[in-house]
Amino acid sequence: MTSFPDLDATPVLVVDTDVLERNLTRMARSADARGLHLRPHVKTHKCVEIARRQLAAGARGLTVATVSEAEVFADAGADDLFVAYPLWVDAARGARLRALAARVRLTVGVESTAGVRALTAHAGTGVGVLVEIDSGHHRTGVPPERAGAVAAAARDEDLEVLGVFTFPGHSYGPGVPPVAAAEESVALAAAAASLRAVGIEPAVISGGSSPTVMIETPTEATELRPGVYVFGDAQQLELEAITEQDLALTALATVVSARGDVVVLDAGSKILGADRASWATGYGRILGTPDARIVALSEHHATVQWPGHTSPPALGERVRVVPNHACNAVNLVDELVAVSGDAVVGKWPVAARGCTT
Amino acid sequence: MTSFPDLDATPVLVVDTDVLERNLTRMARSADARGLHLRPHVKTHKCVEIARRQLAAGARGLTVATVSEAEVFADAGADDLFVAYPLWVDAARGARLRALAARVRLTVGVESTAGVRALTAHAGTGVGVLVEIDSGHHRTGVPPERAGAVAAAARDEDLEVLGVFTFPGHSYGPGVPPVAAAEESVALAAAAASLRAVGIEPAVISGGSSPTVMIETPTEATELRPGVYVFGDAQQLELEAITEQDLALTALATVVSARGDVVVLDAGSKILGADRASWATGYGRILGTPDARIVALSEHHATVQWPGHTSPPALGERVRVVPNHACNAVNLVDELVAVSGDAVVGKWPVAARGCTT
Repeated sequence: MTSFPDLDATPVLVVDTDVLERNLTRMARSADARGLHLRPHVKTHKCVEIARRQLAAGARGLTVATVSEAEVFADAGADDLFVAYPLWVDAARGARLRALAARVRLTVGVESTAGVRALTAHAGTGVGVLVEIDSGHHRTGVPPERAGAVAAAARDEDLEVLGVFTFPGHSYGPGVPPVAAAEESVALAAAAASLRAVGIEPAVISGGSSPTVMIETPTEATELRPGVYVFGDAQQLELEAITEQDLALTALATVVSARGDVVVLDAGSKILGADRASWATGYGRILGTPDARIVALSEHHATVQWPGHTSPPALGERVRVVPNHACNAVNLVDELVAVSGDAVVGKWPVAARGCTT
Repeated sequence: MTSFPDLDATPVLVVDTDVLERNLTRMARSADARGLHLRPHVKTHKCVEIARRQLAAGARGLTVATVSEAEVFADAGADDLFVAYPLWVDAARGARLRALAARVRLTVGVESTAGVRALTAHAGTGVGVLVEIDSGHHRTGVPPERAGAVAAAARDEDLEVLGVFTFPGHSYGPGVPPVAAAEESVALAAAAASLRAVGIEPAVISGGSSPTVMIETPTEATELRPGVYVFGDAQQLELEAITEQDLALTALATVVSARGDVVVLDAGSKILGADRASWATGYGRILGTPDARIVALSEHHATVQWPGHTSPPALGERVRVVPNHACNAVNLVDELVAVSGDAVVGKWPVAARGCTT
């Protein structure tokens, strides 16, 4: 088991740069082969070094979740940013959006007439918009057939309406990705038709989640916005969106307690995150031991049931834990340790860690 | 609903300093009335300002989870620290423990003979130890009757054995706290007897979790180590360990989407944490609206089902969300906004945020 002798403390998050590069290249090529622009969601890694690699691999711009994430990546030189969120814009946020729009190509999400009016009232008309539609996740976004009404309201406020976007987050369930991908495709086509019905030709029709993005190309889509594909995680593995060879992010952990087939690691929810979907088989996975299960998780303890057919690691041994949800794990640390094989090749700051506003 | 006009961005974590002081005082008085020392666990708040208030209210020292937390609080002037964790000590961690022990009174947890030997091999004998016992949580710690064997091994290595400790974490379940408190009491007494049987009189017999700490005084206990009591959280509320009036920590959030009785807030798992125990009724609670339920949580969205008998907040309105687990929420931010009523009275750095090692 890889032990990373250069690292003298656990738990830390480690990125396998060889796997990372493979993941980046594969997604870039896949989008290219389908004639789609790739605008990866950087909320997964929050890391300038990785965003630069995504742009170098052909990404047309970056997706962010918050204005403060946009500020970090603009500071790092990104020049085309989409805030994929139905921002509520008040005076303070409006001022920040104006400042951003003065230096980058900036697009934000809208999903209500009231939201459109708050945006123009406080941020002016220098920001492009995409109308968010609900393709089945039932979180934010209007029904596809109502996208035209929101788009028309934005046009009436002199905003540039670029098109529509959705996040098929309901893809996160065993067996569900193909269904969600099909629903996304129908919804995006309906939303595009809804814009055309009010005289707006959508230049951008944007979709994609990591579980669905390789399955099917949404009808009429122009752009994909996957996030987790850079690292993979235990959720993607259990959804069969990836295989173990695609896992680039792990928490290096040490065995601190061992009794029979049960070991306790020093990696808990403060390095892995506390995510556990109803369908997940545990609180994460152990790299190289697919049958081990993390049966309990506290802030600084992972209790692991080791499979009977292999010997569990001994006290003081190191193992690599795959978080359930990469995005929340990365947001817990100030830096990622970049490795190649057993060697540390860099420390990458998580520049947008904690950027919630 | 309190809107904090001084705060120009959401989501942020807000601490009601009046409630905080009440919580600190109540616990300090309760411990004092029972003749117990209070050594609060600072992993909950990771905040020097709050630790100072705990010490001013009579705490005998602080409990931490990691060596890096100990380093932060030692830097801030704390002089008596207990690392309540069965550390695996290698050369690097041993050097850090030696440096700490040279400037503070330092105690650490042990639960195996191998762990004791690794500690002395790398950190020497300047660190005191408490033997961790399992009082029913089944995470780390030896069975109570085996505490004496670990204690004797530590004594044989010339370590100062101060006593025993446990964390009755199995108290986290509806109706369970009284049972867990009783089991803790029996286990601590048995562990103390086990030490006496090898000729060691325990000076410290340490227990306590926030759900159990007010219920029953463990037989023979000398010390309590609650953490969450400073803030309370939705878990403590649902366990009936506290009432809504005891909640000091909330995430100030804005409504970004509203449809009928369902509203979506901008506070997701990146400010609240993703904790959701199997028995929890949702992903957190809404302060002042006990019947509202957070039915879904993404990184930047909380989907809230508002109760039919009250009007849901409108787009752009602010609400306060109570995290399920205060410790993981605080660890997501760089600072806590301290308020009194509707006024901001300070910004408190989360000095030990991300201190996992």
